[in-house]
Formats: sequence, structure tokens, C-alpha cells
Amino acid sequence: MSVDAAIDLFNEKREAFLADLNTLLRFESVSAQREHAKDVQNCAAWIRDQLALAGFDAQVMPTAGHPVVFADSGPVPSDQPVPTLLFYGHYDVQPPGDLKLWDSPPFEPTVRDGRIYARGSADDKGQIMTHLAAMRCWNETHQHLPVHIKFIIEGEEEVGSPNLPTFVREHAEQLRCDYVVLSDTSKLDDDTPALTHACRGLVYKEIIIDGPSRDLHSGQYGGAVANPANVLAAIIASLHDTQGKVTIPGFYDDVLPLSDEERQRMAEIGLTDAELLANTGSPAPAGEFGYSTTERRTARPTLDVNGLVSGYTGEGSATIIPHRASAKISMRLVADQNPERISEAFDEAIRQACPPTAKLTISSHAQCRAYVAPKDSPGMRAAIQSLTDSYGREPVLIREGGTLPILPMFKEVLGADSLMLGFADPDCHLHSPNEFFGLSDFDLGTRSILRFLAQMALCKP
Amino acid sequence: MSVDAAIDLFNEKREAFLADLNTLLRFESVSAQREHAKDVQNCAAWIRDQLALAGFDAQVMPTAGHPVVFADSGPVPSDQPVPTLLFYGHYDVQPPGDLKLWDSPPFEPTVRDGRIYARGSADDKGQIMTHLAAMRCWNETHQHLPVHIKFIIEGEEEVGSPNLPTFVREHAEQLRCDYVVLSDTSKLDDDTPALTHACRGLVYKEIIIDGPSRDLHSGQYGGAVANPANVLAAIIASLHDTQGKVTIPGFYDDVLPLSDEERQRMAEIGLTDAELLANTGSPAPAGEFGYSTTERRTARPTLDVNGLVSGYTGEGSATIIPHRASAKISMRLVADQNPERISEAFDEAIRQACPPTAKLTISSHAQCRAYVAPKDSPGMRAAIQSLTDSYGREPVLIREGGTLPILPMFKEVLGADSLMLGFADPDCHLHSPNEFFGLSDFDLGTRSILRFLAQMALCKP
Repeated sequence: MSVDAAIDLFNEKREAFLADLNTLLRFESVSAQREHAKDVQNCAAWIRDQLALAGFDAQVMPTAGHPVVFADSGPVPSDQPVPTLLFYGHYDVQPPGDLKLWDSPPFEPTVRDGRIYARGSADDKGQIMTHLAAMRCWNETHQHLPVHIKFIIEGEEEVGSPNLPTFVREHAEQLRCDYVVLSDTSKLDDDTPALTHACRGLVYKEIIIDGPSRDLHSGQYGGAVANPANVLAAIIASLHDTQGKVTIPGFYDDVLPLSDEERQRMAEIGLTDAELLANTGSPAPAGEFGYSTTERRTARPTLDVNGLVSGYTGEGSATIIPHRASAKISMRLVADQNPERISEAFDEAIRQACPPTAKLTISSHAQCRAYVAPKDSPGMRAAIQSLTDSYGREPVLIREGGTLPILPMFKEVLGADSLMLGFADPDCHLHSPNEFFGLSDFDLGTRSILRFLAQMALCKP
Repeated sequence: MSVDAAIDLFNEKREAFLADLNTLLRFESVSAQREHAKDVQNCAAWIRDQLALAGFDAQVMPTAGHPVVFADSGPVPSDQPVPTLLFYGHYDVQPPGDLKLWDSPPFEPTVRDGRIYARGSADDKGQIMTHLAAMRCWNETHQHLPVHIKFIIEGEEEVGSPNLPTFVREHAEQLRCDYVVLSDTSKLDDDTPALTHACRGLVYKEIIIDGPSRDLHSGQYGGAVANPANVLAAIIASLHDTQGKVTIPGFYDDVLPLSDEERQRMAEIGLTDAELLANTGSPAPAGEFGYSTTERRTARPTLDVNGLVSGYTGEGSATIIPHRASAKISMRLVADQNPERISEAFDEAIRQACPPTAKLTISSHAQCRAYVAPKDSPGMRAAIQSLTDSYGREPVLIREGGTLPILPMFKEVLGADSLMLGFADPDCHLHSPNEFFGLSDFDLGTRSILRFLAQMALCKP
């Protein structure tokens, strides 16, 4: 099954697809802001129409929040059974933030220096447009798609996909697939394509320490009652040892060790310490002893305070013993840490560390497993081959330090692993002003997807 | 010289004086908050007018911060030389804090169960109103005051009196006196009056820990850079050992030990642990091992966090590494700890505790020595007598756990010791929501001051 005709058609119609991308980028589909609910709906409808043009049976389906676009190409009339792929993406975008920081308006796509600048250009509209363009080109140059393809494009990724798990569970049969395919990650650098094969999990807790029933005068009662802020500080401090390791009993029990080979690869492709400091402005690298910067930020579990508040935090001074102190604390998990077990172990460690002179309350904000895709599946090999053919360079396999809760959810509900073919620049100003997507990545990404379809047609489901 | 006519007049005009107190309490004279600068000024002007009504030469005098009200009754036409008393007070108040925690608005004085509830009712407006009422009653019933009286009422006590020392030094001649008299302390309990003879010193610091140049994504960089909130917690935790002792090297070097006699007296008159818990709502007593609750809160040095803030403190969660964390930390000192030396030792301990992976900034909000007054001076005897006559019970001599920075300063600049006749309830919610002052203490306090004037007229200067 030749992909050349489809690629030729894409090359020919490229300007028309870029015009479509411009249309897509003009929808102010900001999921976090209620005033954009109509823009979000209009954007969903436009994507449905694009998928219908590509021959899909496409529909906008409601959720308790913003709608999901679902589409199905239908079974492939073929002698051999072929795999089913579920393409995932999201059509919602982050709020644009301070408009003054944008060099061109966030919802008026503008091309400069071979890049298209707009909110959502990289995350995720530019990348899902590679999928849509590939489907149309294949559809117009062949009688049917080479594999069975479904689409689920949601409108709530930027607000944590609160309704997606329910949707997927309720439509598990319709969504059944061999692989989930997504383009919502990045290349390694300008020239090097990447396949993200792992992301970290998350356990996010909040602890509240209560002492006296009101703020006390620190002269009147200082020294005679437990100070919740001091107690909180001691509890937090107890969670790390001097080697930067988390002290929660059992925390590392289920951590899968890194192979020498992967450590070697990380050392070759990861951020240097100089790059880390340049990117973050931090005075020095820090973290768990015995691990490199790249290992620490992607492949090792962590515990970080995300917020802390107690007592008087205004201008000047107030001599009080605060009645309460609280902290938001999150842990990034790696395989095979179990979020429930880590959450319980955290609670128990906090209970042990809290003296009887203060009252403790613990609550949970979120928890999610880490996700690691097998590196040698047929799908992964097909993805590697198609990226290599398109970019002229073999992709690297990288780990994402952040959390993509949909991946373990798809694995759990649909039993499918995810293939993450990311085409964005690693410094594409994700969630920041002047977000961009490279025009050459739009081309190479679309060609990669077309080649990937052809490769997948050779796989058994 | 009879005091009865003045007391009778007070009894007669009590409601009018309470109305004046309400007026005084309505000024939102929060010295810590810039937006209240005008309220502070208006409050000063009102007090000046009250003192002028009592026959004083009164004026509002500028400082580099909020103004001072100064007033002088002029020399007493008398055969015998009489003492000069400098009445000190402050018209500024603490911020009200969370308004939701107040049962009635903090700046709308409200009487419930024989108490007047308002921010500053006990600290210090209700108490200075006893002085103002006493002066007016004496002035209207006699040809002149029985002793030479001066007033200094400042507007920056709640922010550590930063400009008062300069003011007092520059006006030392005008302020010359035999005793400083103040009512900014408490009774022992509901029925027992108290004379405070000692108070703790203070060193108040702020530490700022800076990490990355902006809040970072905790997935992208978590584990690879120092988290300022975690660093701050570890620094704070390092300041106490497991016995509740402050670990700063040299911290206890100059602490004067308590005599067995004073420890015995404290055991007799001090708060029981049950009272401590009832007053504060704390779950258990806590503090330095080997000392009683009363010793801990009045006669031992302490270190407390007064405020703490970092990162995301709103509703829900945000997965960030905060770029900054800061803490306000104060230490209460006892004689003969030297504030400069303690401040330096604190700074050094913090520097030692801060890792090179974060940037540290330390600043100072206030520092002040502890103060101990002689227990057997003529002024002290006069104060004891007038409290005994008014309350029908001999006052106890107590130590104040809080800090009155002006006391060592008055001693140093004017050579005068201070007499602390306190009328507030020991559980008056000082610096907390629902601060109150007992109406009966307003009465008994005013009568005590009138009797104290009469007693002092019998003393040689």
C-alpha cells in the first residue's frame, strides 16, 4: 500500500490545509473561561465537519462539561485483519494571559520566520491538524483508510479532563482500539524527532495543622503552645533526608530501576545542568543524590511543596502564633508506584510526624499512576520507522516529567497503550505568550502520520 | 487631697466617657497598613483634642512614620515638689485579620455581656481611655492636677515603635519624668489586679528563600531544582531540637536563671495548664522541656514563626515549584539576652542552614531588650495601694510574655522606670478576632488611675 500519492496530495494542497489550520486557531476555545463556551462548541463542530470531509462518521457528543468530538472510519474491507487506532487530541486551549506580552494577537494566527504563532498552535491544534490533513489526503487518494481509525478529540484537556474518564468508560466499546495515538508532546530539539514513552504519575495532597482556636499574641502565649507553622515546617522537613531522598516508608519500594542503557541514553540526550540553570534561573541543580538532572526530572519520583501559608503574610510584621498552617504537597510518581499506596503511606508518615500538640487534617486533590509504554511493540516500531523516514533521523525515546492522566486511564479502560508522536518544538512557549508551531513540523508531522498509517497496515492487530 | 469628687464625677459621666471610647474605637488606626494612614492621623487628632479638653497643652507631633500625641499639664503650683509622671499609650491597633471570624465588626464597638468588643478595645484604646477619663475628671473637680503629668501616645506600637526612640531622644528634655506610667498589660484574672514588672524582649526577622526565577511546572522540573518552600521548611525545622530548645548557638548564654522564690510564686499565681488550654483552644501544652507553662510564656526565651507563604495558596491545586518562600520569625528574649547578639546569631544559623541551591535574604523588623522593673520603688508602692483600694484586692506582680520595647528605651533615654497598671482581661483576645475590654475594668481602671494620682502626690520626686 503506497503512501506516496497521499504525500504528494498533501504537498499539493498544503496551503489549503494551512488555511484550515488558521481557521481552527481562530476559535477562542478557552476551556477554563465560561465566556468562551460558545467558541468551544463552535470549534468542536468545525472539527466534526473536517472529519466528515475525510470520510468519517463524525459527531459532537455531550459530556457534563465541554463536548467530545468522536469519529469512526468504520471497519476496513480487507482480507487480513488490520489494527484499530484511536487518535486522541484536544481542541481546547489555555487562556492567552496578558495580551501585551504577545507579539501578534493570540487568536489571529501569524506566520513569522517559518513558524505559525497563535494560542494553541502547538498545544494542540497544530498537531491535531496534522492528523486531520493526513486523514483527508489518504481518503482522497485511496478507496479507504489502511487501518480502522477512530478519533476522540476533547475540549477539557487544559482543565484536567474532568469528564473524559466517564466518557471513555461509558463508550468503551465504541472506543475499543489496539493503540491510542496522540501528538501532544515535543521533539527533542529542532532537528531530532522524539517518541515520548513515559510520563510520571501524581499524588497531590493538602495538609492542615491546627493549633489554638484563634491567632494568639506571640508574647502572651509564645513558648507555651505548639505553633502550627513551626509544626508544619518540621513535618515537611521530615519528608526528605540529607541525600534528597523522600523518607516516607515504602516510597521507593515499587520504583522500577532504570537500565544502564536508558541512563546512558538520558545522559546523551537530556538537558545539561547549564541548560537547566538557563531555563529555570535556579542557582544550582539540586535533588536526589546519585541521579542526573534528566533522571531527576523525568524518571525519579519526587515530593514538592506547591504552596504554603500560615499566619501574617502581609507587609511588615505581626506578632502572632498562627492558629493554622497549611501546605499543598504533590508527589510525582514513576512506574510501578501505586498512587493509592503512596497516598496512604504519605498520610501515615504525616500522622507520625505530627505531634499530639497540634491537630492534623489531610485531604487529597488528585492521584494518578505513572505511565510507561512498551518500547518494542509493533506500534512503537511503526512510529519509529515513520518518524525516521520523514525527519531523516531516528527519533529518541524520551520520558515526560509531567503527568498525562489520560494515558493510564486509556490503558485501564481500553487496555490500549499510547504512542506519542510529538511534533512541537521543545521551546514552543507552551501555555505562555507567543506559542508557536513550526511550519516544517506541520509538513513533517503530517507526512509522519501518513507513513505511520501505512506502517500500521502491515501490523497484525 | 481628696480623690472622691473626681471618682464621683466619673461615676456620673460614665456613659459619656463610654461614648468617647466608642468614637476612639471606630478609628481604623491600623498602623501596619498604608491604606489606613489617614485613619491613624485622624485618631491622633482626636486624642489631642481629648487631652486639650482635660486642660493639657496638647499637640500632634510628626515623626518619620505615624505621629505622636504629646501633652503636658504644666508644673503644679505647690509648696512641695511633686513627681512628674509620663503617661504612655498607643492609639494604633493590629490589623483585624479575617473579618469572618469576628462576631461583630472590628471597628463597630459592640457591648455584649458587660464587655465592649472591638479591635483595640483592650490593646490599647480602652486602657488609654481610662487615663483620659481620669484626667478629665480630676481636672473638672480640682484646680489643678496633683502631680505634673505628661502624655506621649504613639501610633506605631503595633509595628514595633520604629520612630519612637528617635522622638524620645530628640524630646528628652520635654519628656523628663520620674516614672513612666502605662496601661497596656493585663490583670492576673477576672478579680485580681496585677502590676507587670517585667516583659520580654524581641528580635523579629524575615527570611526569603529564592529559587528559580519564576514558578516552574512541577512535572517539568520537579526533583531537579531546589524547591524554596521545602528549603524554608527545613531551615525553620532546624531551629528547634526535640526538647523544644532553640538550637541557635549561644541563644541561652545570657539568660538570667529564675530564683526558686520566683518559680514558686509563678507556680502559685500562674495559669494552670487547663486554663491555658481553655484560653487558647490548643490541644495540649507544648514548649521547652523542664519549664512550666507560666515560665515558658513569660520568663523563658522563645522562637516562633509568625507568618509563612509560598507558591499557590488558593482553592484546589496547582502543580508548581514556587519561585520564592518567605517566613516571618520572631524571638522573645529575657534578661540579659542582647538583641544585637541574638539577631546576629540567628542570621548566622540561618545562613548555615540554607543550602547553596537557593538564595537567602534576611531582613529585620524589630529588635528590643527585655525589661525588668524594681519591685519596691515609691511608684510601685503607690500603684499597689491604688489598685488594692479600687479592686478590693492586692495586686500580684507578674511578668509579661510580650514585649514593650519602649520600656528599656525610656529607662535608657529618660532614666525612668515604668509602672504597668494593666486593666485588660488576661484572655481579652489581644491581636485576635473578638478582642474585648470589660466595662467593669473601664470603671475600676479609671478609679485606680485617679487614686494613683492622689497617691503619687504624696511621694517625693
